[in-house]
Amino acid sequence: MENDTIGIVVEATGSTGVLHQLTGVIARHRGDISSVEILDNRPEETRTYFEVVLPGGAEELLDDLRALPIVRGVEMVKTLQAIYGKRIIIMGGGAQVGQVAIGAVSEADRHNIRGEHISVDTIPLVGERKLADAVRAVARLPRGKALVLAGSLMGGDIETAVREVRNQGLVVISLNMAGSVPDAADLVVTDPVQAGVMAVMVVADTAKFTLERLKRRVF
Amino acid sequence: MENDTIGIVVEATGSTGVLHQLTGVIARHRGDISSVEILDNRPEETRTYFEVVLPGGAEELLDDLRALPIVRGVEMVKTLQAIYGKRIIIMGGGAQVGQVAIGAVSEADRHNIRGEHISVDTIPLVGERKLADAVRAVARLPRGKALVLAGSLMGGDIETAVREVRNQGLVVISLNMAGSVPDAADLVVTDPVQAGVMAVMVVADTAKFTLERLKRRVF
Repeated sequence: MENDTIGIVVEATGSTGVLHQLTGVIARHRGDISSVEILDNRPEETRTYFEVVLPGGAEELLDDLRALPIVRGVEMVKTLQAIYGKRIIIMGGGAQVGQVAIGAVSEADRHNIRGEHISVDTIPLVGERKLADAVRAVARLPRGKALVLAGSLMGGDIETAVREVRNQGLVVISLNMAGSVPDAADLVVTDPVQAGVMAVMVVADTAKFTLERLKRRVF
Repeated sequence: MENDTIGIVVEATGSTGVLHQLTGVIARHRGDISSVEILDNRPEETRTYFEVVLPGGAEELLDDLRALPIVRGVEMVKTLQAIYGKRIIIMGGGAQVGQVAIGAVSEADRHNIRGEHISVDTIPLVGERKLADAVRAVARLPRGKALVLAGSLMGGDIETAVREVRNQGLVVISLNMAGSVPDAADLVVTDPVQAGVMAVMVVADTAKFTLERLKRRVF
């Protein structure tokens, strides 16, 4: 049987080295940390969230965390993976990002009702450098699965960034637009609402849609 | 002068205790870790992203991280805070979440062009328990500033969760709907597009809009 992932929130009194002490206790219990977030980081109080896969019981770990002098409280919580699930990220011009979001949110709703966990995240941005930075940063976001580029003209370093994140396993969908980004994308879709719907279908386990089985790349 | 936050991605060979070793080096340099993400967590390779405020220079820290036997590579990157900035989270029924997103994305576009960094994240969800869980989990998401509840009926434990996250400093906007959630929210807005616009105005430093100066709570 595979071990379940547990979520833990630890409150501690702040100073440098808090994370080092907490992760030391988790390492002693041979816990594999799959996710970590710093929720609060003030001198008087820090709150840290961990998702941990444990070979043994959770109670011993929680007790040992509570035994640290810096720790004020430890609480088990539901994991973010279980709640927010896979993420689709839409970026580009506000008008088009909004239309892609309409399609993606409606489609995610239909899959989430059947047990999927898909969230749709957006950021309206303008400019080659900002967009290229944001595309590269998607690879540093937890749970990111697909990226939709929504605009009328994107190329240059954005194209390079698209090729980089595709190599890291991200699916990239581009609106049909001017510039070289459509050439670099997995899929090119003209209608923004359909681009959002397709992005969700690509990542949903409840959908019968795989890129490999498509007979064309541009819609 | 305040120290800048630096972003670092560390590649290491995986085993339990990786995070403990990396944070130990950062603690020795008296680095204050403001954010951390586990990007990859496979036995043969882990990638971890840190945002750190350092009292001294970054190069010594990078060199000491590289000197760890488990570390394969260390790279400085732009911080997620600098790229994706503040987050607005919209949750509820797909049709309404999409309309709120239209308003929020268009408004965020206008502020981001003037130097703000606001992203708009959504999750379509149904059911009291799932929504209450997701509301409480917003407090565990990094950079979350405002929450918009978009639906036609929300109450019970969702109302309790709304009061909890408001106490933790989150701004909550509710659509005008049946159930007790509107009573618990900071602001109640009838038009979903306007609800999205107002959510962005509340968190944008580039907007002249503060909840305290409003003469009514329901629009």
